[in-house]
Amino acid sequence: MQSFFSDIEPIRFSANTDNALHYRYYDPTRKILGKTMEEHLRIGVCFWHTFCWSGSDIFGESTFTHPWHHTTTDPMQQATLRAAAAFEFVEKLGLKYYTFHDRDVAPDGRNLRETQDNLSRIVDLMAGHMQRTGAKLLWGTANLTHHKRYMAGAATNPNPEIFSHAVAQVKHCLDMTQKLQGENYVLWGGREGYDTLLNTDLSKEMDQMGRFLTMLVDYKHKIGFKGTLLIEPKPCEPSKHQYDFDTATVFAFLQKYGLEKEFRVNIEANHATLAGHSFAHEVAYAFAANVFGSIDANQGDPQLGWDTDQFPTRLDEIAQVMYLILQHGGFTTGGFNLDTKLRRQSTEISDLFYGHISGIDGLARGLIIAAQILEKGVLQKFTEQRYQQWQTPYGKDILAGKMDFEKIAAHVLQHDKEPQLTSGRQEMLETMFGRELV
Amino acid sequence: MQSFFSDIEPIRFSANTDNALHYRYYDPTRKILGKTMEEHLRIGVCFWHTFCWSGSDIFGESTFTHPWHHTTTDPMQQATLRAAAAFEFVEKLGLKYYTFHDRDVAPDGRNLRETQDNLSRIVDLMAGHMQRTGAKLLWGTANLTHHKRYMAGAATNPNPEIFSHAVAQVKHCLDMTQKLQGENYVLWGGREGYDTLLNTDLSKEMDQMGRFLTMLVDYKHKIGFKGTLLIEPKPCEPSKHQYDFDTATVFAFLQKYGLEKEFRVNIEANHATLAGHSFAHEVAYAFAANVFGSIDANQGDPQLGWDTDQFPTRLDEIAQVMYLILQHGGFTTGGFNLDTKLRRQSTEISDLFYGHISGIDGLARGLIIAAQILEKGVLQKFTEQRYQQWQTPYGKDILAGKMDFEKIAAHVLQHDKEPQLTSGRQEMLETMFGRELV
Amino acid sequence: MQSFFSDIEPIRFSANTDNALHYRYYDPTRKILGKTMEEHLRIGVCFWHTFCWSGSDIFGESTFTHPWHHTTTDPMQQATLRAAAAFEFVEKLGLKYYTFHDRDVAPDGRNLRETQDNLSRIVDLMAGHMQRTGAKLLWGTANLTHHKRYMAGAATNPNPEIFSHAVAQVKHCLDMTQKLQGENYVLWGGREGYDTLLNTDLSKEMDQMGRFLTMLVDYKHKIGFKGTLLIEPKPCEPSKHQYDFDTATVFAFLQKYGLEKEFRVNIEANHATLAGHSFAHEVAYAFAANVFGSIDANQGDPQLGWDTDQFPTRLDEIAQVMYLILQHGGFTTGGFNLDTKLRRQSTEISDLFYGHISGIDGLARGLIIAAQILEKGVLQKFTEQRYQQWQTPYGKDILAGKMDFEKIAAHVLQHDKEPQLTSGRQEMLETMFGRELV
Amino acid sequence: MQSFFSDIEPIRFSANTDNALHYRYYDPTRKILGKTMEEHLRIGVCFWHTFCWSGSDIFGESTFTHPWHHTTTDPMQQATLRAAAAFEFVEKLGLKYYTFHDRDVAPDGRNLRETQDNLSRIVDLMAGHMQRTGAKLLWGTANLTHHKRYMAGAATNPNPEIFSHAVAQVKHCLDMTQKLQGENYVLWGGREGYDTLLNTDLSKEMDQMGRFLTMLVDYKHKIGFKGTLLIEPKPCEPSKHQYDFDTATVFAFLQKYGLEKEFRVNIEANHATLAGHSFAHEVAYAFAANVFGSIDANQGDPQLGWDTDQFPTRLDEIAQVMYLILQHGGFTTGGFNLDTKLRRQSTEISDLFYGHISGIDGLARGLIIAAQILEKGVLQKFTEQRYQQWQTPYGKDILAGKMDFEKIAAHVLQHDKEPQLTSGRQEMLETMFGRELV
Repeated sequence: MQSFFSDIEPIRFSANTDNALHYRYYDPTRKILGKTMEEHLRIGVCFWHTFCWSGSDIFGESTFTHPWHHTTTDPMQQATLRAAAAFEFVEKLGLKYYTFHDRDVAPDGRNLRETQDNLSRIVDLMAGHMQRTGAKLLWGTANLTHHKRYMAGAATNPNPEIFSHAVAQVKHCLDMTQKLQGENYVLWGGREGYDTLLNTDLSKEMDQMGRFLTMLVDYKHKIGFKGTLLIEPKPCEPSKHQYDFDTATVFAFLQKYGLEKEFRVNIEANHATLAGHSFAHEVAYAFAANVFGSIDANQGDPQLGWDTDQFPTRLDEIAQVMYLILQHGGFTTGGFNLDTKLRRQSTEISDLFYGHISGIDGLARGLIIAAQILEKGVLQKFTEQRYQQWQTPYGKDILAGKMDFEKIAAHVLQHDKEPQLTSGRQEMLETMFGRELV
Repeated sequence: MQSFFSDIEPIRFSANTDNALHYRYYDPTRKILGKTMEEHLRIGVCFWHTFCWSGSDIFGESTFTHPWHHTTTDPMQQATLRAAAAFEFVEKLGLKYYTFHDRDVAPDGRNLRETQDNLSRIVDLMAGHMQRTGAKLLWGTANLTHHKRYMAGAATNPNPEIFSHAVAQVKHCLDMTQKLQGENYVLWGGREGYDTLLNTDLSKEMDQMGRFLTMLVDYKHKIGFKGTLLIEPKPCEPSKHQYDFDTATVFAFLQKYGLEKEFRVNIEANHATLAGHSFAHEVAYAFAANVFGSIDANQGDPQLGWDTDQFPTRLDEIAQVMYLILQHGGFTTGGFNLDTKLRRQSTEISDLFYGHISGIDGLARGLIIAAQILEKGVLQKFTEQRYQQWQTPYGKDILAGKMDFEKIAAHVLQHDKEPQLTSGRQEMLETMFGRELV
Repeated sequence: MQSFFSDIEPIRFSANTDNALHYRYYDPTRKILGKTMEEHLRIGVCFWHTFCWSGSDIFGESTFTHPWHHTTTDPMQQATLRAAAAFEFVEKLGLKYYTFHDRDVAPDGRNLRETQDNLSRIVDLMAGHMQRTGAKLLWGTANLTHHKRYMAGAATNPNPEIFSHAVAQVKHCLDMTQKLQGENYVLWGGREGYDTLLNTDLSKEMDQMGRFLTMLVDYKHKIGFKGTLLIEPKPCEPSKHQYDFDTATVFAFLQKYGLEKEFRVNIEANHATLAGHSFAHEVAYAFAANVFGSIDANQGDPQLGWDTDQFPTRLDEIAQVMYLILQHGGFTTGGFNLDTKLRRQSTEISDLFYGHISGIDGLARGLIIAAQILEKGVLQKFTEQRYQQWQTPYGKDILAGKMDFEKIAAHVLQHDKEPQLTSGRQEMLETMFGRELV
Repeated sequence: MQSFFSDIEPIRFSANTDNALHYRYYDPTRKILGKTMEEHLRIGVCFWHTFCWSGSDIFGESTFTHPWHHTTTDPMQQATLRAAAAFEFVEKLGLKYYTFHDRDVAPDGRNLRETQDNLSRIVDLMAGHMQRTGAKLLWGTANLTHHKRYMAGAATNPNPEIFSHAVAQVKHCLDMTQKLQGENYVLWGGREGYDTLLNTDLSKEMDQMGRFLTMLVDYKHKIGFKGTLLIEPKPCEPSKHQYDFDTATVFAFLQKYGLEKEFRVNIEANHATLAGHSFAHEVAYAFAANVFGSIDANQGDPQLGWDTDQFPTRLDEIAQVMYLILQHGGFTTGGFNLDTKLRRQSTEISDLFYGHISGIDGLARGLIIAAQILEKGVLQKFTEQRYQQWQTPYGKDILAGKMDFEKIAAHVLQHDKEPQLTSGRQEMLETMFGRELV
């Protein structure tokens, strides 16, 4: 069997190393708060950016010359080589998970039947690779954005025949995900939005999407798929405005269509910031709404208005998110999918490793920091203390619904004095948090 | 009775005028689509920016020397003069509505009882002004942001005594709004959010807000207030992140706490754009979610990242919103509140008129344009046509829930051919829309 | 000779038309302020978006099936057909100008010599088309962004061999532009910037660019090219940060390298807004710095953080820019190049016409409005009046350098009284401006 | 003499401390690369945010009750106490520098003479405090934004009498800065911009500013002020558009008026990001343009569109800037002024210490990290290597101006082969950089 990365040694942990091809922080077997790093982080490599994208951007052609694409021009042979490369890569990184879109792993055929046949054949190969390497599927998803038939949306398309194509595609992709024992199934609706309101019936399109997802839930239960269904919010790009703008918008949608128990969110860091939120906000909100599912780990460029999908290295950002996840008991079926790509000047195979190591070490550092903070307990104690007056009988009565406007107003007027103000201590907390960044 | 605007003639409509103190478009009695302009637009003047703000900004002191503030230093006398000025102004503009916060019309006293007493006394004066001038109250609201007690939130404060203060204040403000026969009551939660997640329990704070609003609904029904309760979304400023980020977030919140039938939204143009949406998007979404209520009419500066509250003059923006409103049958209890302020270099009394005339004419032009578009019907027909295949038996069956993934996939595979693509015709529609801008 | 647009009648002016394939405002022969509309606007069609781009975006494949690309797969035959289509299109629109990048009109060959040969052959064809149709070349430019050799910049590349490739390419492209009697030559440095400062010597790269442009100036003079050299600012995309961020940055650069008399700017509306400026600001600044050259006419989406290159239809934006241009005497060698593209759902040939008509009418309306404002003179008079005290002997002495800090401070202390404040009258001016929008 | 901070021990360095009132990183006497931390960082405390601001924001009243403002209502007595508090604070932090605006330290009088007299009297007190404590003045500046006379600009005002007021004010402030042996004098033109182009002659206003600064330079030399003149860029706020948008815009301006040798820039982190740049970009550009002067150290909120002036704690941001400063030999007369303020919920005196300690430790960590990177030399070597081909005779000849377009094009055509591409290695460099963050 062909090796694509024979020049690279398996990536291993090595404390204090200067070697950029070693992990300095990610030690999969290290125990933290009772679980190994590997169990906490559940890191996956994505097919799309890592093995399919070849360095093109909107102003420039491909810059990469990956051997899995350049030793043959036949799409199915390329797909075969690409799959081999992918699993060799995941193994070399010592990871347990990968993720894919249907179109990442197998090419379109001349019609739907051939397209599905292509996918089924490559999925069989992938099953073999999984057995051989021990890699597992974090999630699968259908690409409903690339093909021109979806230019005006998939589930939200004005044409029910295109809606139907999307149904057929998602059905088959879910079948394949189940076959590969995927732990989740993701929907990202990059074209489920609009370019102009002038030709769009927003209400009708949302109803279509509600119907689509309801049928998906029915099908999932019918076939007994055990994984979690995830929706990935993004505010825009490629559409001018996407219906799954952010977690709150998704939560509103799910409740409207009675689906809030059936879906969770796959939060992407860079999508959060494009929507005007901090990454941590989206995660905190998802936990508050009880729809937290999984993470697309990456980071954006604070000066750029599009999805740059860079490797996650901002420690404060990752640590804050990791802290929230640990506080809520960690992932269940979710994990950190590295939805990350190289800069297009990073043209060498080794750059794929440099990039992933930087991102994986970033996640590992975030975990180490968050665990420290949690174990010291200073921040958690401060926050509990801040709300403690809600634990008095008076506070509890209010929250329990035993009070009303009149009783409360009477209570205030009875004493009629100004409440004592308490410092929020933001700078002190930032200092305490910052000191754990290591 | 003292006149503050004796130099200014009542503002009247005058077609083709060059006089900037005439309306060129707003003719209150002109009939459009069966209603007068006045009935369509329901324009209100806001107390806050127009009569209270004196031209200060974060880097500079006041620049205005309004006589209602400068002929006395006694806060209650100022409030008395301010009220007189306000109703004279509304009358001179020939409008029917105004809006206020409690603290706009009467000052804080030494304690809550005195504060409420101050407000009650001025409200009595206002009732007299209303009777004399025929002005009506579009909505009232309580200012829960200015006083330092609310620095960490009102309903979402970590201290239940401050929560209680907010209850007492909102209760009294709703009482006063009812007394003045207000047609709506608004809540804007400028401090209901956070500065840092490090000291914030987002989930607990949202529960507090849910409890607060539930009690408000109970009280409203108890006292028989007939107006609509409105929540005004805004993403941030002054808080780093506000819980009522945008309409979708508010809709998610309302559904979570079972309040979606009790509240509607008061959409502000400039808040929409700060949240990363077009003004029209927020309105379209509100109609789709069945929570559209009222509008805070203004516009932001596309290059600035804060609320500039400028007079609405962008015709395409206003016309698109007006078109949506007309399509959905117009306002019920809502209207266009001019939440607008002068630039601080506009230091003269006449500038208050110039500004309002520009905004009112802006809204009138928007209405004229939207009505033309609606009457021609080209855009509406195009959009209906675009979705017409959903009216086939196949399309209807899908939406009616009579199909499932398997049946639909079988349908696609049976024919297995690529659907025909249809142009979205965005540029043609933009041309048709643009040609109506007059 | 093959016709690509035989279904479309030549686009003609027709006042009050409802036909979206007529101009309603652009009447090339109409005289305004002593010149025809055509002479004022000097509108050009760009090759790139209009004839080369096929509807792909970063998430999706091509959606257009233009016959010049689909009746052959040979790149030079495609180029031949594309050129024929382009000149037929320009003629059908009744325009006088077009613009191109070298790679738009002819494909890369196996080496530089073949590439240049390809270009020369198509340029000969274009010369024939120009003679036949009367079309003229507004400007040419070299594409230094698409080929992977330029991934790390062209003039600013760390490799002098790549710098040299850029020299050879620009030299040949300028030769061809001269051959076609281009009235300007443009440089847009989409890769002249950086992705990360960690591997970038900003100072060295700017020196390289200074050297490159100096040699270009020398070569221009040597060959006697009579056109204007233009630099097009853009802040980013594709690079993380581009050296020609905005007009001020370009002006700083030109002065540093002693080139401020040799270059002017080609301002693109959408690049201005990406840089955090209004379109009008960039134009006003360019006039103040005496480097105004030409315009890439389009508009961005206020909610999106990338270049959307939409057809210019925002009347206030265009009118303000047109007003500045008229105040400064109009274009010399510059003009309005429509750097605009269809939305990718606008898949039909007719959409190319709808889009261009909307943009051309947008520019025509802007001109009509600006001319009205100029003729009425209200705004101009107001502004002159505002600064009139600088025309007193005291004001003139200051500006003439006859005063110093001590004399002026003594003057102030002598009287020591507060200056009178004057209203800036922004709202009144906005009303006057808005009333001219027709 | 009254003590305001008697409850707080002098802040001292203590490695590995958990005490948020100790420095954990800032050890003023620690030697790094041959200089002490104190000598490297030259940290200053600003008067404005720290001692004058009382916790108000645009939506809320003051929340702080600092004793220097609340034990008297007489402005000059407040100023006297405030000065005492300031120097006690600087001493307690163990710092060497402070900065001020004229209006921070002394109040406006009834006329200019009284205003200047107020300032002179407090400056005398400050001189005493400086002698007693050893504190030094990093820079002084005049507040030309707060007073309403400057609402339409100071140097750029349409009224030459207001221009003259600004001259008198700046002259006196420079006199006072010289008296206090200030090492720099700063100009920030918060109102030197416009709110609308409709009433603005941008070209005339820039000429006024050029004249103003030229006279300032003359006066500086006349009185023998030895400090550096600094301009602080900011894109907007409070003005819609400020003439000193960013460093490049300032550099363009300085060159236009022949002042580029007389001024340097004072770069503020949060102003950089509001202008669409990274903080590091602005510093790198300033060094490339040879105008780097000093730093206003703080950080913004990536989600907010206004100046939040938070304490600098983002290690990657600070370290990158510190790395650039070290590479260029460190500060000369400049330093890190903490232009930072508490969040308004941080109401206690101790919060002033928590905040400053977090910022000072942030700067110290940045220095430690940058020094490590510099000493290892990996990044520097990589970058030098990347450009090494410019050191060949061919590369040198180009940069030396010995080549022209024709020779270079001939050189390329002679060999006519594609240059070898080299990876930019961004991810590897980010890993190396990230591993130094401690």
